Amino acid sequence: MAEPSLRDPFMQAAIDEAKAGLAEGGIPIGSVLVIDGQVVGRGHNRRVQRGSAILHAEMDAIEAAGRLKASGYRRATLHSTLSPCDMCSGTALLYKIPRIIIGENRTFRGPEDYLRSRGVVLEVLDHQECVRLMEEFIRARPDLWDEDIGE
Amino acid sequence: MAEPSLRDPFMQAAIDEAKAGLAEGGIPIGSVLVIDGQVVGRGHNRRVQRGSAILHAEMDAIEAAGRLKASGYRRATLHSTLSPCDMCSGTALLYKIPRIIIGENRTFRGPEDYLRSRGVVLEVLDHQECVRLMEEFIRARPDLWDEDIGE
Repeated sequence: MAEPSLRDPFMQAAIDEAKAGLAEGGIPIGSVLVIDGQVVGRGHNRRVQRGSAILHAEMDAIEAAGRLKASGYRRATLHSTLSPCDMCSGTALLYKIPRIIIGENRTFRGPEDYLRSRGVVLEVLDHQECVRLMEEFIRARPDLWDEDIGE
Repeated sequence: MAEPSLRDPFMQAAIDEAKAGLAEGGIPIGSVLVIDGQVVGRGHNRRVQRGSAILHAEMDAIEAAGRLKASGYRRATLHSTLSPCDMCSGTALLYKIPRIIIGENRTFRGPEDYLRSRGVVLEVLDHQECVRLMEEFIRARPDLWDEDIGE
């Protein structure tokens, strides 16, 4: 399997999702679920757009992929522009998604050590565009950001 | 705060949700989110009904409650007919829900020790009706049950 890079096309797809969310007035976090080199689900945070407490980007991407066989999830890689929170990490554990590519974990860091302890391989790209999207958003809407992470 | 009992009205509401799901052809797991003695969200597993990979009962109840303030979640109790899986447990952790009342954990047990290690108080009722609903369902639809827990 090729190493992800800053030009990882799947991370770029997740960033495109984040930007789509921002353009809708939402929180700029995006995600794609990839199986066998194909995007099977893409999504972005929909807290604002749908008044949703559960549609974080990763959840939206996994939901968009529909009902998959266990064998599919076990070959999947979840790409997210931001380090997954407890909810999204738990969802990856439920479905035994073995690998998560994280755009950045500077502005928020989920339970990465716990994911690793459960056998999930994480790669953090420290992608500057992901950092910039979140830094600008958190500065503009700290209230909304706190709500999204339960603070 | 009163101790829950087998006649806990909130667990009964969760069981009613589980039965509603079963009547729709779905997986019989129900949940209610309670704040200050009031049900603020109720739900049941919607895998079959909505083709959903993320609408477990607890997720459905939390989503039904809408966007709540952090202070609300921190006074909340989540009631579920079945021990919450990694996803639903992670969601409780995200929102810092301090207490989960579990109908039963015989037919499935989620990451209860991990929840406790993160400070969540769990109470397991070992409610016979919850056990019966799941035993009958798992016997009838083992394929669907495996799909729901990522097996």
